[in-house]
Amino acid sequence: MSEAAQTLEGWYALHDFRSIDWTAWRLADESERSRALDELQSFLQQWSTVEENKEGSTAVYSIVGQKADFMFMHLRETLEDLNAIETAFNKTSFASFTYPVHSYVSIVELSNYMAAPGSDPMQNPDIIARLKPTLPKASHICFYPMNKRRDGQDNWYMLSMDERKTMMRSHGMIGRSYAGKVKQIITGSVGFDNWEWGVTLFADDALQFKKLIYEMRFDEVSARFADFGDFYIGNFLNGEKFAELLAI
Amino acid sequence: MSEAAQTLEGWYALHDFRSIDWTAWRLADESERSRALDELQSFLQQWSTVEENKEGSTAVYSIVGQKADFMFMHLRETLEDLNAIETAFNKTSFASFTYPVHSYVSIVELSNYMAAPGSDPMQNPDIIARLKPTLPKASHICFYPMNKRRDGQDNWYMLSMDERKTMMRSHGMIGRSYAGKVKQIITGSVGFDNWEWGVTLFADDALQFKKLIYEMRFDEVSARFADFGDFYIGNFLNGEKFAELLAI
Amino acid sequence: MSEAAQTLEGWYALHDFRSIDWTAWRLADESERSRALDELQSFLQQWSTVEENKEGSTAVYSIVGQKADFMFMHLRETLEDLNAIETAFNKTSFASFTYPVHSYVSIVELSNYMAAPGSDPMQNPDIIARLKPTLPKASHICFYPMNKRRDGQDNWYMLSMDERKTMMRSHGMIGRSYAGKVKQIITGSVGFDNWEWGVTLFADDALQFKKLIYEMRFDEVSARFADFGDFYIGNFLNGEKFAELLAI
Amino acid sequence: MSEAAQTLEGWYALHDFRSIDWTAWRLADESERSRALDELQSFLQQWSTVEENKEGSTAVYSIVGQKADFMFMHLRETLEDLNAIETAFNKTSFASFTYPVHSYVSIVELSNYMAAPGSDPMQNPDIIARLKPTLPKASHICFYPMNKRRDGQDNWYMLSMDERKTMMRSHGMIGRSYAGKVKQIITGSVGFDNWEWGVTLFADDALQFKKLIYEMRFDEVSARFADFGDFYIGNFLNGEKFAELLAI
Amino acid sequence: MSEAAQTLEGWYALHDFRSIDWTAWRLADESERSRALDELQSFLQQWSTVEENKEGSTAVYSIVGQKADFMFMHLRETLEDLNAIETAFNKTSFASFTYPVHSYVSIVELSNYMAAPGSDPMQNPDIIARLKPTLPKASHICFYPMNKRRDGQDNWYMLSMDERKTMMRSHGMIGRSYAGKVKQIITGSVGFDNWEWGVTLFADDALQFKKLIYEMRFDEVSARFADFGDFYIGNFLNGEKFAELLAI
Repeated sequence: MSEAAQTLEGWYALHDFRSIDWTAWRLADESERSRALDELQSFLQQWSTVEENKEGSTAVYSIVGQKADFMFMHLRETLEDLNAIETAFNKTSFASFTYPVHSYVSIVELSNYMAAPGSDPMQNPDIIARLKPTLPKASHICFYPMNKRRDGQDNWYMLSMDERKTMMRSHGMIGRSYAGKVKQIITGSVGFDNWEWGVTLFADDALQFKKLIYEMRFDEVSARFADFGDFYIGNFLNGEKFAELLAI
Repeated sequence: MSEAAQTLEGWYALHDFRSIDWTAWRLADESERSRALDELQSFLQQWSTVEENKEGSTAVYSIVGQKADFMFMHLRETLEDLNAIETAFNKTSFASFTYPVHSYVSIVELSNYMAAPGSDPMQNPDIIARLKPTLPKASHICFYPMNKRRDGQDNWYMLSMDERKTMMRSHGMIGRSYAGKVKQIITGSVGFDNWEWGVTLFADDALQFKKLIYEMRFDEVSARFADFGDFYIGNFLNGEKFAELLAI
Repeated sequence: MSEAAQTLEGWYALHDFRSIDWTAWRLADESERSRALDELQSFLQQWSTVEENKEGSTAVYSIVGQKADFMFMHLRETLEDLNAIETAFNKTSFASFTYPVHSYVSIVELSNYMAAPGSDPMQNPDIIARLKPTLPKASHICFYPMNKRRDGQDNWYMLSMDERKTMMRSHGMIGRSYAGKVKQIITGSVGFDNWEWGVTLFADDALQFKKLIYEMRFDEVSARFADFGDFYIGNFLNGEKFAELLAI
Repeated sequence: MSEAAQTLEGWYALHDFRSIDWTAWRLADESERSRALDELQSFLQQWSTVEENKEGSTAVYSIVGQKADFMFMHLRETLEDLNAIETAFNKTSFASFTYPVHSYVSIVELSNYMAAPGSDPMQNPDIIARLKPTLPKASHICFYPMNKRRDGQDNWYMLSMDERKTMMRSHGMIGRSYAGKVKQIITGSVGFDNWEWGVTLFADDALQFKKLIYEMRFDEVSARFADFGDFYIGNFLNGEKFAELLAI
Repeated sequence: MSEAAQTLEGWYALHDFRSIDWTAWRLADESERSRALDELQSFLQQWSTVEENKEGSTAVYSIVGQKADFMFMHLRETLEDLNAIETAFNKTSFASFTYPVHSYVSIVELSNYMAAPGSDPMQNPDIIARLKPTLPKASHICFYPMNKRRDGQDNWYMLSMDERKTMMRSHGMIGRSYAGKVKQIITGSVGFDNWEWGVTLFADDALQFKKLIYEMRFDEVSARFADFGDFYIGNFLNGEKFAELLAI
């Protein structure tokens, strides 16, 4: 049996993708739309307060293409908190103008392939900050889930800890070369959703997502051992931009 | 031909995942909602009585994310019993505010890879209790189906009984190290549904699901021989919490 | 080129899975439901007459779980007969309370891997009876489609006739050990539907399906060469039980 | 680089599968149904005229099982012609009682693996007739798409022209042994639809489809190199039979 | 680690496939249809102006078969521009007569496998023109997404730069032999959508798509290393042709 890497976990994450029923929205009368918008703005405000209080964080983005119209990425202390956000949203009249298209449940995760031996990472404020982060307000978001492969000769989970460590180090160095351009949040989802990890990237220049992921694909850990799910790409939204998106 | 492991079977299981039509629910008038809620509470009460009478057991959980809003896990003596529960539920007005999204049919199973030779397991009250269990009231549930692989060199069903026994022993030891943290119910579904087994885990700390499954993934029996389906994760519901979930 | 096994064919088969629109059914007025039920009972009666006249056979089962609410398995002389049954059903008001969820087109088939050389099987009344069978009225049905694999070293169609014959003999012996417990109807669907064969099993004890299929999975012909589709499991219905299922 | 076989192309093909909204059809009043039927009959008449003028050909079949209720297979000179047929059909009231379920775009193709060197096939009237055929009025149709595999050691496109020619010759000989029983139209769809080829078979005895395809499956070119999509099987329709199918 | 090829990027691309709700369109009254058509024509006019101003380019095609009724391919400077086009379209009454069926997000890309060393490609007006192209007004379009394989021995990303360069050169030579017949736009979508590249081809003779792609399939880079998604094939639309398509 190959040794599992130790992991550290922080806030639970819910990526929540929804689309707008544009015909219903267009045909609604002004007062219905106005009420629905108020509900939405009130949520955005609440989530902002939670973020200020360091009790969680929420990112809001429109999605390009037909996969969804917008997404919320919520980080919270517990699965019950995430469920409560969903339920509260579903009870609004704004929710009735939208429909769910995809979601992903995971938890912010740091793997300690690179950890210094002997230190207690949970005493390290930098690590705490990475486990319970305030999500960036970058212009663009990119989300995709991934697995490590278990396929014939390309079986990540049959490698020794040393082999995995060496490959992850090389992988991490590519990531670090994009520091300042791309901010990456890794969330683990083994036991929580259909893939092993979710990757959420933030950047002001969306092209950097492509540069980073393409470069990584030539790295052995991706080339031989990574399987990817659907990719979602989006543009930053705040209350004002969301109102503009919905303005008829 | 490789020898099949003997298995013991107990109650049949139906995992029943449903979502709520929130717009219809919100727009229904108070009396409709109230009647529907009474129907639901009456079911919860009936199922509770069945459980007290040791004639079956039912777990009720909300589901995090868009895969479903809630799930029932029913254990009963026969497939006819499970079918009757479905049909009775479908005839209610509460059911009209929901829609089916996924189900899984299986039967509680113990494999005797570890059985003591010469004993009759069905005379063992501990084994009977594991075959016809009262489901825990833990804070969280995790459900996923799985197959053993039959893929080139990674073909579980072409291994000798001894090879399988050795690997299953190692696998079981990981499971045992989570005793008190994660309660596991294995249900067999060969001939009943699309995968060979269903795994249902219960824990008060959802993070333990991730820790357990991730650690097992490095074990050869998972690393080389396991294929997994969709994962569902949920939070405990009872009558009171369900009423709260549905309160408008 | 490897030699194809000769096959014998009997009646064409249509497995027809449908679900009930429970909300529409519940909200229909008594007279509509009563008329729809009369249509259904009239079909069951007609199909029964066909069966008595040895012009075909029909099995009717409820399905456990959300995959379907019920299924008809029709055996008839021609594809036109099967099509006519579908069309007649679709024109009823009962059909409007249901929706199609899955179907499978195939033909009852005997492969002569085990045939005695020199005999003309079509002169054998036992063989005719197996090609044009009256379907059992067993308590449970199990249906699944399957392919023989063509995958790298595991390519059934590249094996010699002798290799296949040896493996099929072992396979057949497992089947025979369940005589009296499980009745098996093999239907061929090459050219008719998406898989190569349909397997329909009948048993009074549903657990025997699991025992049989699990035991077979360790047999090389299944372990290395079988791919399986979705499994459906159901409970016996007749006119009375169907009326009960639908009673509001 | 392996040499591509030369191909000859004739008419473009559209396989158009649709189902009937039986509830809407049953509830429509007599005059609506009558108008819709007139539209359908008028199309059948126009397509018949096109066929008589050798400007194309259309086959009309019901489909057995739930995959579709009926299908049109249109052969025409251009993609614009095929698109115009679709659009004209979609604008009718008859179309509103149906819904699209599947389509396939391809072009009648002859590969010249067997061509005599030095001859100009387009001067050969037999070849022209095969590229622009009048579709048979056989009792049954069978349609499925297929790819040649590119999978590890089983990579058709890495074989030499000679290897491919030898295998295709053996394959063709099986086909020829069904002359008079099964008529085969191969259509190429590389660049036009999701698979590389469509295969459309016509026969008065549907069992011959199964016999032919099963026999071919043991041929190396199928056993090692063919992947198949969904199979559709149908019964012949003309104006009279279609009216009968739709009669309430 | 294998070295990634450098790439140059130009305009972002959105392929937007939609279908028409023909029943709603047919039943709409003349004035509704007329208003919706005006909205559509106004978009076509705006997009034409953008193209004249070299600020982007839009191609409009009908799609043959049931996959979609029509598609827009938009090239614009930013993801926000593409999102704005979607949103503006979704707010029209014309959009309410259509429904989304597929989309693809990517960016015009040139890989420099063939670049002359030492030159700065962004100073080359030919390269700029290829990165920000005016889309052809050809009679036909063909779109499909693709990946380079990472599968056992067929792993593109584990090859050396030299191996990849040699194969891409051979591939490019096939492409060049279709100069004047097929115009090809490669868009990269790593990080933007579910496949690594989109390929959009334009030709006046649709048969050339098939000839080109089939010939390439025998080239090692396709035979061993390419996986393809769904193919879409269409006919040229402009304002007049679109009005004709929609005329009742």
